[in-house]
Order: sequence, then C-alpha cells, then structure tokens
Amino acid sequence: MPELRKDPIIGRWVIISTERGKRPTDFSTLSKKKRQNSACPFCPGNESATPPEVLAFRPPGSEPNKPGWTLRVISNKYPALKIEGDLNREGRGIFDKMDGIGAHEVIIETPDHFKNMVDLTDKEMEDVLWAYRERTLDLKKDPRFRYIIIFKNQGEAAGASLEHSHSQLIATPIVPKRALEELEGAHKYYEYKERCIFCDIIRQEISENVRVVIQNDAFIAIEPFAPRFPFETWVLPKSHIADFEDTKKADIPLLAKLLKEMLTRLSKALNNPPYNFLIHTSPIDTHHLEEYHWHIEIMPKLTRVAGFEWGTGFYINPTTPEDAAKYLKEIEV
Amino acid sequence: MPELRKDPIIGRWVIISTERGKRPTDFSTLSKKKRQNSACPFCPGNESATPPEVLAFRPPGSEPNKPGWTLRVISNKYPALKIEGDLNREGRGIFDKMDGIGAHEVIIETPDHFKNMVDLTDKEMEDVLWAYRERTLDLKKDPRFRYIIIFKNQGEAAGASLEHSHSQLIATPIVPKRALEELEGAHKYYEYKERCIFCDIIRQEISENVRVVIQNDAFIAIEPFAPRFPFETWVLPKSHIADFEDTKKADIPLLAKLLKEMLTRLSKALNNPPYNFLIHTSPIDTHHLEEYHWHIEIMPKLTRVAGFEWGTGFYINPTTPEDAAKYLKEIEV
Repeated sequence: MPELRKDPIIGRWVIISTERGKRPTDFSTLSKKKRQNSACPFCPGNESATPPEVLAFRPPGSEPNKPGWTLRVISNKYPALKIEGDLNREGRGIFDKMDGIGAHEVIIETPDHFKNMVDLTDKEMEDVLWAYRERTLDLKKDPRFRYIIIFKNQGEAAGASLEHSHSQLIATPIVPKRALEELEGAHKYYEYKERCIFCDIIRQEISENVRVVIQNDAFIAIEPFAPRFPFETWVLPKSHIADFEDTKKADIPLLAKLLKEMLTRLSKALNNPPYNFLIHTSPIDTHHLEEYHWHIEIMPKLTRVAGFEWGTGFYINPTTPEDAAKYLKEIEV
Repeated sequence: MPELRKDPIIGRWVIISTERGKRPTDFSTLSKKKRQNSACPFCPGNESATPPEVLAFRPPGSEPNKPGWTLRVISNKYPALKIEGDLNREGRGIFDKMDGIGAHEVIIETPDHFKNMVDLTDKEMEDVLWAYRERTLDLKKDPRFRYIIIFKNQGEAAGASLEHSHSQLIATPIVPKRALEELEGAHKYYEYKERCIFCDIIRQEISENVRVVIQNDAFIAIEPFAPRFPFETWVLPKSHIADFEDTKKADIPLLAKLLKEMLTRLSKALNNPPYNFLIHTSPIDTHHLEEYHWHIEIMPKLTRVAGFEWGTGFYINPTTPEDAAKYLKEIEV
C-alpha cells in the first residue's frame, strides 16, 4: 500500500510508492526507448494488456475493452495511489502519515500510436477535454478525495514512460501544496480587492498586449509575467470560472482549438520539445469560488532545473516572457 | 541587467536573466561534454579565463590569480544576479519587479581537474567549508542582501555546466520562497511548543534509529521522514545552531568528515549519481533564531520530475527512507 507522509516543517505531503521502483540498482541511467507499437499496451488490439476501461468513446454497440474506440480511459497499471481502502490517518511522534488512497487514471487520447496531441483533429481534441470533464465529475462523488489533478507529460524528458499519446488524472485525499499556495494567494488578494486576481491579470494582459500569444472569444493564452521556465504558457478562460468542469459546453470547442494551436506554436518554435501541462482547478469541496480561476499551465522542458532552483524555489529563467510571446505570435500555423 | 519578478498569485520571485541563453534555437538538446582539462577555466594556469579571485587559499607570498592555490573563489563569469546597482523596486499595475542585484560566486574546491568532492582529503574538505563560511560573513555586510544560498551541482544531469569540482554561492535581495516556507513552518511549531522542530526531529530520529545513516559528536545524517526523492539526505548539527556560519571552529573538521563520508556512501550505493546539495540557513537579518536550525539537504538525481510533481508540489518517491537508510548504512567505506 502506498503511503502518504507529511513533512512536519513545511507541511508538504509526499507519496511513498515502492511498487514503482525498488532497489538502488533500479536507478541506472534511463535509456532512450525506440519507436515501437507492436508491444504498446495503449494500441488497439492490446486492450487486455491494460486494466479494464473506465470510460471509452466507441461506436454504439461495440464491445468494451476491444478495438474500435477513439478514446479510452483506464486505471493506471502502476498507480501512485490505490483506489481501495480508507485513509487511516496516523501520527508517529512528530510525524503524520496516511494510507495512499486515490485514483490514478490514464486517458489514451487516440488509437493512433504515431499521433501526438498536436496531430489530433479538432474533434479528437474536444473528446480529450470531454473525457477530462467526465472523469472529474465522476471522481468528485467520492468523499475520500479533496483534489483532482489532470496533467500530460509529453516526451521522455518530461516524464512520459510510454510514447503513445496520453494524459493522466490523479485524485488525491489532500489538496496538494502548490494548489493550496495559489488558493491562499488568490484569497489574500480577494480579501483586499474583492476581485479575482486572475481576472485582473487577464484584463492587464489584454490591455498591455505584450505577453498575450493568442485568444478567442472565451480563452486566452499568455506568457505569464514571472515565468519559472522559458516559454512557460498559461491558458485561461476569459470570464470567471473557478472549476474546470464548469466550462460551458459551447466553450469546449473553443478551448480545444486554442490549446491545440498553442501546443502547435510551441512545438514549431522549439522543435517539438518535451513538455508538461497541468490543469489547475479548485479543490473538490469548494463551490464556485469567487476568488479562484481555473487555468492550464504549460511548461516546455528546455532547461535543467539545478540545485539552486530545487533548494530555493527561486527560478532563473533566461528568456523574457515578452520575447517568448513575440516569437510565438510570429510562428506560422 | 537581470530582473527580479514576482508572481502576484503565490508570491514567488523569479530571476529573468537573459544573458545566460537567448533565442529559442539555443535550446537544442544539450550534448554530453567530453572529459577535458586543457581548456578548463577552473584549472591552474587558466586563472586569466575567470574573473579575479575574491578569496584563495595559497602559500604565503604567492601571487593572486596565478597557480599555486589549493582553493579559489571567483565571481561567476555569467552571473544570475549582478553585484553593482540598486534594487529599484517598481510596480507595473498588478505586477512587481526589481533589478536583479546580488552576488554569484564560484568556489573552485581543488586545483585537480579529476577530483570530485568525495576524492578531497579531509583537510581540503574543511577548506571548502571554511571558504563557504568566510564568503558568507563577508557578503552578510552588504545591506542589499537578505539571504545567502550555498549549493553544489555534481554532474551534468544535476545542472553542472563545468565538470571541474566546484560549489556556488548566491546572495539574493529577497528571502527565497522555499526558505520562507521552512521558516514559517518552524515558527508555527515554535509558537505552539516553544521548541525547535529540527531539534525535536533529531531527538526522535536518534531514538527510533531507523532513518539515521551516520552520526558523530556534533552532526547527524538522516533520510528524512517525508523525502521528495529516493535517497534524499539531510545533514544537521546535533545541537541547536540557526546560522551555518555560527558553526564552531572545532566542529568544522567533524562536519567535513561526516559530509564527505555521506557523499561517499551515496556515491558507492548509487554508482556515482548526479546530485545537488544545498545549505539551508537563516535569513541575514535574523539573529540566532531559537526556532530555526541550519542544515544541508542532499538530493541525488535518480528519478525524473514529471508534470504531476511540478504542478502540485506533491512528489512521488519509490523508495522508503527506512530502506534507503538501511542500504546506506551497510555500504563499506
């Protein structure tokens, strides 16, 4: 059973999940995997190599866990957190721990092994967002969970262990530290101004127009004012929405289009870089917060994060967001 | 001029330092450097390739910036922060910024290009610690600085751009986020218990004796209860000392010995892994805090940090600290 442990000094929870890698000798250098699809568990025909699907988009009448699907959601075969059990919170002297309960799912975005997210059609991209939404709504019903994280690792250097295009969802029994920090910061601002800080940022970005990359009626993509990484990009709904799953049905195609275009621009500008993106949304037990605003953070993996950054949380970024925005805007798509 | 910018939501400052890397095309894959020393700016004979030394240990009467030194401290040729100027704090609508003022120095630990830190003699290791201390005491006099970070990147994957063994020191005009979090956490505990949380942790670790790797009269090395990374290791003074530079003269040899042994154990256990270490100490404008306790955090670079960890601050660690401690204790040195 994975275990959740809390650092008593700064209150950071970590997952100790020994089933994913064990002895020191397991940490020898990771080698590059070759392009392959015969053995890919995410390819059609290999459905039996994965846990059974929890959601799939497939033609009416077609059989579950068989080919024919266009998108498939499964439990992670090597989950960071386990779905069965209770939390069993416990103290050990100064230390706190609980059982590693949670959901860990994989969204297989396409049956085509050789497509990346930027190669998806608009409709396929919309389906990915629908799957995110549907799984979120379902997992929110579980009273053990406090937060749902949806993220994508593209490329081995960004942490993807399988190359077949997929995203992941983790439901956790705690609100992760970074989400809490954002909520607290947004709350402080709201107390002072009675306005959402994200809404204020969007207004200033549109008016200054030096860090905006693209926008449409409902969404905007900006290079944030204080980015940790070169070409760090945020995608936000222009009107105030606290929870990702409250995105209006009519706006999903607009989000799909903008996110795909933004990823395409990054891919062309930076020669198909490894990247991570994450959906930042409100904790499960909140309702339509006036002070928080869901958004996506995209982080291309271009620089190494060294000791200074790790130890201080103080990032050194060699590229101004103004230069990055200008460059990304000029890319032809 | 590098610029410091503050994320308005979570209050994280970043350094925008465009002199270290510029255009998107500069981010092509980093290639492995070959072993070389003829062109190494840190090797004896090449002193003119670096900025002039700010400190050196060399025989009495020998000439500065010439060979003969056993340890040499220089300003970083490509500093993340610049030493000259004022902070010029400024708001831009919702955003805050200031000039990137600070000190960025390099401690060249040995004249021998082929030695790593674990190969240093006890005396050389002590000299490294003395150099850290001496530079800290000097830079603390500058009223523009609030915090001093001393760190080491060992190996290219840990961010070292030159292989000749060196550490770095950065003096910053702000207290970095991670340091603030530790101080705040330790402060909360102190308010409640009137004891230093680090002292309490050390007492519990010695009594449980399952996460202690090595100790001597003055220092202890443990695998922390909630480690972010496999084989993450902390080195702490056993008695309460808030500031690194207040380490007693008589204890420096004990720290040198323990740190070197700990790095040797990690190196043997994990096949000479890339790693980072960082000295966590009190901010400059505090005096002998009763609630904070300086320490070193060592982070071997064994796993990739993926989107989940980046976006949540919620780390997945495949190795329990109890297993890691047991394994490290059994290594023969």
